[in-house]
Amino acid sequence: MKNFESVADVNQLGSLIQKGMNLKADPLQAEALGKGKTLVLLFFNPSLRTRLSTEKAGINLGMSVINMNAGQGWQLEFEDGKIMNMDKAEHIREAAAVISQYADIIGIRTFPSLTDRERDYSDFILHQFMRYASVPLISLESAIRHPLQSLADLITIEEHKTKARPKVVLSWAPHPRALPQAVSNSFLEWVNRTDAELVITHPEGYDLAPQFSHGIPVTYKQEEAFEGADFIYTKNWSSFNQYGKILSQDPSWMITPEKMALTDNGKFMHCLPVRRNVVVADGVLDSDASLVIHQANNRTYAAQAVLHEILSTL
Amino acid sequence: MKNFESVADVNQLGSLIQKGMNLKADPLQAEALGKGKTLVLLFFNPSLRTRLSTEKAGINLGMSVINMNAGQGWQLEFEDGKIMNMDKAEHIREAAAVISQYADIIGIRTFPSLTDRERDYSDFILHQFMRYASVPLISLESAIRHPLQSLADLITIEEHKTKARPKVVLSWAPHPRALPQAVSNSFLEWVNRTDAELVITHPEGYDLAPQFSHGIPVTYKQEEAFEGADFIYTKNWSSFNQYGKILSQDPSWMITPEKMALTDNGKFMHCLPVRRNVVVADGVLDSDASLVIHQANNRTYAAQAVLHEILSTL
Amino acid sequence: MKNFESVADVNQLGSLIQKGMNLKADPLQAEALGKGKTLVLLFFNPSLRTRLSTEKAGINLGMSVINMNAGQGWQLEFEDGKIMNMDKAEHIREAAAVISQYADIIGIRTFPSLTDRERDYSDFILHQFMRYASVPLISLESAIRHPLQSLADLITIEEHKTKARPKVVLSWAPHPRALPQAVSNSFLEWVNRTDAELVITHPEGYDLAPQFSHGIPVTYKQEEAFEGADFIYTKNWSSFNQYGKILSQDPSWMITPEKMALTDNGKFMHCLPVRRNVVVADGVLDSDASLVIHQANNRTYAAQAVLHEILSTL
Repeated sequence: MKNFESVADVNQLGSLIQKGMNLKADPLQAEALGKGKTLVLLFFNPSLRTRLSTEKAGINLGMSVINMNAGQGWQLEFEDGKIMNMDKAEHIREAAAVISQYADIIGIRTFPSLTDRERDYSDFILHQFMRYASVPLISLESAIRHPLQSLADLITIEEHKTKARPKVVLSWAPHPRALPQAVSNSFLEWVNRTDAELVITHPEGYDLAPQFSHGIPVTYKQEEAFEGADFIYTKNWSSFNQYGKILSQDPSWMITPEKMALTDNGKFMHCLPVRRNVVVADGVLDSDASLVIHQANNRTYAAQAVLHEILSTL
Repeated sequence: MKNFESVADVNQLGSLIQKGMNLKADPLQAEALGKGKTLVLLFFNPSLRTRLSTEKAGINLGMSVINMNAGQGWQLEFEDGKIMNMDKAEHIREAAAVISQYADIIGIRTFPSLTDRERDYSDFILHQFMRYASVPLISLESAIRHPLQSLADLITIEEHKTKARPKVVLSWAPHPRALPQAVSNSFLEWVNRTDAELVITHPEGYDLAPQFSHGIPVTYKQEEAFEGADFIYTKNWSSFNQYGKILSQDPSWMITPEKMALTDNGKFMHCLPVRRNVVVADGVLDSDASLVIHQANNRTYAAQAVLHEILSTL
Repeated sequence: MKNFESVADVNQLGSLIQKGMNLKADPLQAEALGKGKTLVLLFFNPSLRTRLSTEKAGINLGMSVINMNAGQGWQLEFEDGKIMNMDKAEHIREAAAVISQYADIIGIRTFPSLTDRERDYSDFILHQFMRYASVPLISLESAIRHPLQSLADLITIEEHKTKARPKVVLSWAPHPRALPQAVSNSFLEWVNRTDAELVITHPEGYDLAPQFSHGIPVTYKQEEAFEGADFIYTKNWSSFNQYGKILSQDPSWMITPEKMALTDNGKFMHCLPVRRNVVVADGVLDSDASLVIHQANNRTYAAQAVLHEILSTL
């Protein structure tokens, strides 16, 4: 593995999941591997779980970890060929090359504009960074994917599934703000690489990008989707077709104990942060069916598995 | 010791003070104890001494330390049962449980509102955090207490006292802004557990909360209080009765060399930051009687003693 | 070496450059030297290269490194004798003395006002900090100097020079904002201590402070200066005489491939961040003649050499 931005960077998904579970069983087992190596984490957007879990993962592997909030300094220019006489003080060419001098691996978080779909879906910022960095780069969430979250989700499903081929439902839920599609996109492409019955449910107009959703059954009837489900993965996203728009805040899409009762003793999953009693009712989140804290915990071992893969090639 | 929020969490105060002094004599003596353990420090409010000294304490004990300014990301909801459709993006239930996945010990700093006394004096934020965290939690100053400061203060008094039972004066002093009562509250309950003659002096209307001040003599005559004193512990606080209000900025309450001359070769103490020539005159702060830098130094060993106690139980 | 703020703190410049190059060849060779020692880096102004390279340098030497953005907390009072009843919450006397309790070495970055020349050129903030700190202090760029940058620049010149006595040109270039003179001042005093033919070129009115530029030939004809040059060191600065003013944004001073063609196969240098196609054309920055990434890389070893010198005396 050179860079890590999507499931396409993973050769053997099953063994990567196993590696995560192994590291979870004994987190310090590979402490020597990262000795003398530096992980620089660069956040263009705020982070709680990602920052803590990735720093912890690096520490567990013996790495030195340097965190940096990119927004605190000057603004970067990402376009080539510009005359930089306005508000951008440094070009990504220099910034990426320079950070590569101090890092053995770079992690970077960036969010979509939700206004320029073409640019967002080219994952422009991540790819410009990758183009000009000279060391391996890990996406800590990009404009359109959140691969470490998805790997943590698959580890969590693997730990809690009771059937060889579980039914996994990705369900939209309401939210007061326009959110990225990254977590949902990523979840689809990762689960699609496993043995699962995958179903999407959302209101009309909320179809996800075809590159992520094609071939996966979609229903506008949420309760129908929940029937017999083993895992209810919930997430709000803004519209892909009317790009970045909120088309519905219909509270009847909130996940409730009544809906969970339709499942086959199904588990509730969410990447967090989650708005209680908007996205999901207290009664679900506070029940034994909720796996959200397990997912958050597994973020450490997902990051550790990926860092382990990359460190092994350095 | 499971959590550390007040002197009530301390079994043997004398031996905790001794532990701090021991660690000061050889700070790296217990470096193996924290190996492989992570300390996450979460600041809802700015910090200089607390951040540096607690991080240093963790490092001295071999821990990995992760700092996080909670204010830089999204806002947390602390109330249960809310419909989270406004500005709060994550509930303390999830935040505390999630951070507990990455930390062996969590430190948290939070300040009072100074408008809602009942809520502040329930130490609502600290206690909600403690309720939902699954690992030990250390207060890095809460709405109403600053226990690591108090422990550092007692170590400093122990190092500098010349009598078995010193006279210790807590003196209010003027300040242009409304400040918390936390340092003063805490100082009272910690000194009260030692062998000392404790006296409070402040202008009328500045009585501290009865739960902290009961049984301790109070005088409105500052100079009377100073007579024969061994330690003058100075702090501004806003009114408890007219909650959070500034009732006086009377400059005659400033600590001066003339007032210090009334003491029995008394030492000057303050938790810092301190406003020169408002709270205390340059002539006091720059004299040999000032212990403020010693106090700041002892913050490291106070934190190290507490972390050492907790690590020993993990 | 006690403190590090200018080339005057260096006894043997040649051996300090060699130390940097040695450490670059084997960065972890002196990992034991900083064991148990803490480096606190305090930024009053934003930083990318300085923060990452100095933290990395400390880590390479086995130190614990604590970063702190000074601007995130309260404001400091730097003047003595003030009545602190306004917006400054802590005096530099306490802040510097307190940080010295937690640090074995302190690094500090501060910028000029560009309005009060006398105060800036006294390096008031740095010197107040130095006066009240009780441990060695490293300038991470001050109001008028950037010594770690200059040391990194000399290492880079040493690595790339093809003559015993290279021709080194410091060339002004246009920029939309008023910038400090620190990098240019520093470059002059460091190169002046080496065997080089040093020439300055800038538009009329941009003379640097005499204490840095005296004795060095200046020409207003940029192309004349470039003839036969081995190194073109480019930097914008605001006027020293009309202090802090922008007197010219003349685009004809931008560094272009045509101008580089006048040199003797000269190399392009800049401290970064740099505004492309304003300060320097893409065609120069993206050519093999550009040393900017090498300079950035050498920041680590410049910092490591200086820290090594200081650690050796502790």
